[in-house]
Amino acid sequence: MRLGLDIGGTKTDAVAVDDTGSVIDRVRLVTGFGADAVVRTALEGVETIAVRAGVGVSAFDSIGVGIPGQVDTASGTVMHAVNLGFDELDLGARLGGMLGRGVKVENDVKAAALGAYHLLPSTRSMAYLNLGTGLAAGLVIDGALWRGARGAAGEIGHIPVDPHGALCPCGQRGCLETVASGSAIARQWPTDDPVPVLSLLAAADAGDAVAGGIRSRLIDNVAAAVRVLVLTVDVEVVVIGGGLSALGDPLLDEVRRVLAGWALESPFLASLELDRRVSLLPAGFPAAAVGAALVGAPIEKEGAGSWQR
Amino acid sequence: MRLGLDIGGTKTDAVAVDDTGSVIDRVRLVTGFGADAVVRTALEGVETIAVRAGVGVSAFDSIGVGIPGQVDTASGTVMHAVNLGFDELDLGARLGGMLGRGVKVENDVKAAALGAYHLLPSTRSMAYLNLGTGLAAGLVIDGALWRGARGAAGEIGHIPVDPHGALCPCGQRGCLETVASGSAIARQWPTDDPVPVLSLLAAADAGDAVAGGIRSRLIDNVAAAVRVLVLTVDVEVVVIGGGLSALGDPLLDEVRRVLAGWALESPFLASLELDRRVSLLPAGFPAAAVGAALVGAPIEKEGAGSWQR
Repeated sequence: MRLGLDIGGTKTDAVAVDDTGSVIDRVRLVTGFGADAVVRTALEGVETIAVRAGVGVSAFDSIGVGIPGQVDTASGTVMHAVNLGFDELDLGARLGGMLGRGVKVENDVKAAALGAYHLLPSTRSMAYLNLGTGLAAGLVIDGALWRGARGAAGEIGHIPVDPHGALCPCGQRGCLETVASGSAIARQWPTDDPVPVLSLLAAADAGDAVAGGIRSRLIDNVAAAVRVLVLTVDVEVVVIGGGLSALGDPLLDEVRRVLAGWALESPFLASLELDRRVSLLPAGFPAAAVGAALVGAPIEKEGAGSWQR
Repeated sequence: MRLGLDIGGTKTDAVAVDDTGSVIDRVRLVTGFGADAVVRTALEGVETIAVRAGVGVSAFDSIGVGIPGQVDTASGTVMHAVNLGFDELDLGARLGGMLGRGVKVENDVKAAALGAYHLLPSTRSMAYLNLGTGLAAGLVIDGALWRGARGAAGEIGHIPVDPHGALCPCGQRGCLETVASGSAIARQWPTDDPVPVLSLLAAADAGDAVAGGIRSRLIDNVAAAVRVLVLTVDVEVVVIGGGLSALGDPLLDEVRRVLAGWALESPFLASLELDRRVSLLPAGFPAAAVGAALVGAPIEKEGAGSWQR
C-alpha cells in the first residue's frame, strides 16, 4: 500500500493506493496557508489515511507529496509556492521528521503526469497538460517521468505565441499561459461567478463577441499547446487535466475540432493525427495524489488494467 | 570498429570510428540522385572505408546510415526524401542485402544528435538543433536518443510563431522554419551567391534595412527554437549544427545576445540560463556519420573524453 498527497491552493487530497495502483481510500482536507500550516495539513492527511487503514505510517511502501512550485526532489524542498503562502519550505525533511520515515516530494503537475500515465496501460510516452491557474505539462518519456535537467521540463506555458499579447507574470509577453489558463480567463473576463470559465462560456454562447473571442483564443491555444508537445516530444497521448478540464467533453470536442481543422490545411499535421492523441483526465480522478503515491515506485503496467475505469 | 554514413543532398560522408568513438577514417563522396544511385553511393561509401581499413564489411561492429526523410528504423525504409530524388526506398534491406549483413538506418538529424551527444561526456540530455534547408532538432533524453512515438520528436520547425507569416510547405503559416532556416533565407533574400546567408549578412552589415530585418528574424527565431526546446524538454545543452552553423561564433554570439536580452526582461527565463546552454557543433565534425555509426551501440561515455577535441 502506498500513500499520496496532493497539496493544492485550497484543498489537499490524500489517497491510499494498492499494489495494482487502484485507489482504496481517499480523503479531502482544507489546505492551511503558510509553511507551518501546510506541513500540518500534510501530516493530518497522512495520519487520517493511516488511521482509516488501521496501520501505522511505517506500513506504507512509500509516502509522496505533490505540491505546486519548484521542487528539489533530492532534498524535498519546495520553492516559490506563492499560492500556499511561502517562498521556501523543506517539506520532505519536516514531514519526514514528524513521521519518522522517508517522504518523497514532487511538483504537482509532474506527479499528476505519473498518475495519469498509470491509466494508460499500453502507452510508453505521454504528456499531461494541466490547465489550472497556469498552464504547464508533465512528461512521461519511454515509461519514466522526465523532469528535465533542472526540473523545468513541461514549462510550455511560458512559450510566447503572440508578440503583441498581454504581459505575463514571468516577464515575457503573450505566453501561452496568458491566453489558455484559468488566470487568462480571470484577467480577460472579470466576473463574480465562482467559476469564471462557465460565465465566459455562457456569455459566448449567448452571442457576446468579446466572450467569443476569449473562448476562441482559449481553445486555439490549448490546441497550440498540444501541437508544441507533439512536435517537440512526439508523445503518443496528451491528457488534459486541471481545473479547466472540468468543462469536460465540450472542451475536448472543441480542441479536437481545432486540431482537425489544422490537419485539413497541413498534410504534415494530418499525418501526426493530433486530434486522435488528445484525451481528458477522467473527471474526479485524483491524478496528482495517485502519482505522488507512485513516485519512485516500479512501473508495473501489466497489472494496471483495473485502473482504467 | 564501427562504420557510419551520412547521405546528404549533394555529399555523402563515410566514417570509421573506433571503440572510444574517435573518427579514424573519413571519406567524402558525391551523392547520386534517385533511389538506385543513392544505394550505389552508400555501397561505395561502405566499401571504400572497408578497403582503406583493409578489412571485410563483416569486420565492423555496426554499419549505420543517416539520411534525410522519414525513417522507419525497424525496417530501414526511408520515405519522402525529396532532395535525394525518391519518395520511398527500402535502404536497409537493399544495402544490407548487397553487403550480406545488417545495416541500421536513422534520420540524419537524429543521427547527428547522437554524434553530437558523444562530444559531451558529462551530459545526460541535449538537443541538436539543425539549421539546414529546414529546421529540426534531435533529442537525447536521459542518455538515449528519443525518436518519439512516431519518429516525429524534434519537428519543431513546424511550430508556428507568426500567424501572419509566410505559407510553409507543410501547409501551416509562419512556422519557425519559414524564418530560421536556409530555405527561409533563400525565399527572403534571392541571390546568385552560392552561400546566400553570407550575402544576406554582408548586406545587413552594410546597412540594408531589408537584409537587417531578415537577419533579425533569423537570429530571434533560432533563439526562439532554443527556448521551445528548453521550456518543453529542459535539455541541459542545445548544440546548433547544420549548414547555417558554418557562420560560427558570430551566429552563436548573436543568439546568446538575444537569449540574454530576454533574460533581462524575465526572471523566469533568467533562472533557466538559456544563453549558457547553447553551443555550436565543432566546425567540420561529421556528427551525422559518427552518430549513424553509433546507432544502437552501447553508450559508454566514460571513455568518451578523447572525443572532445
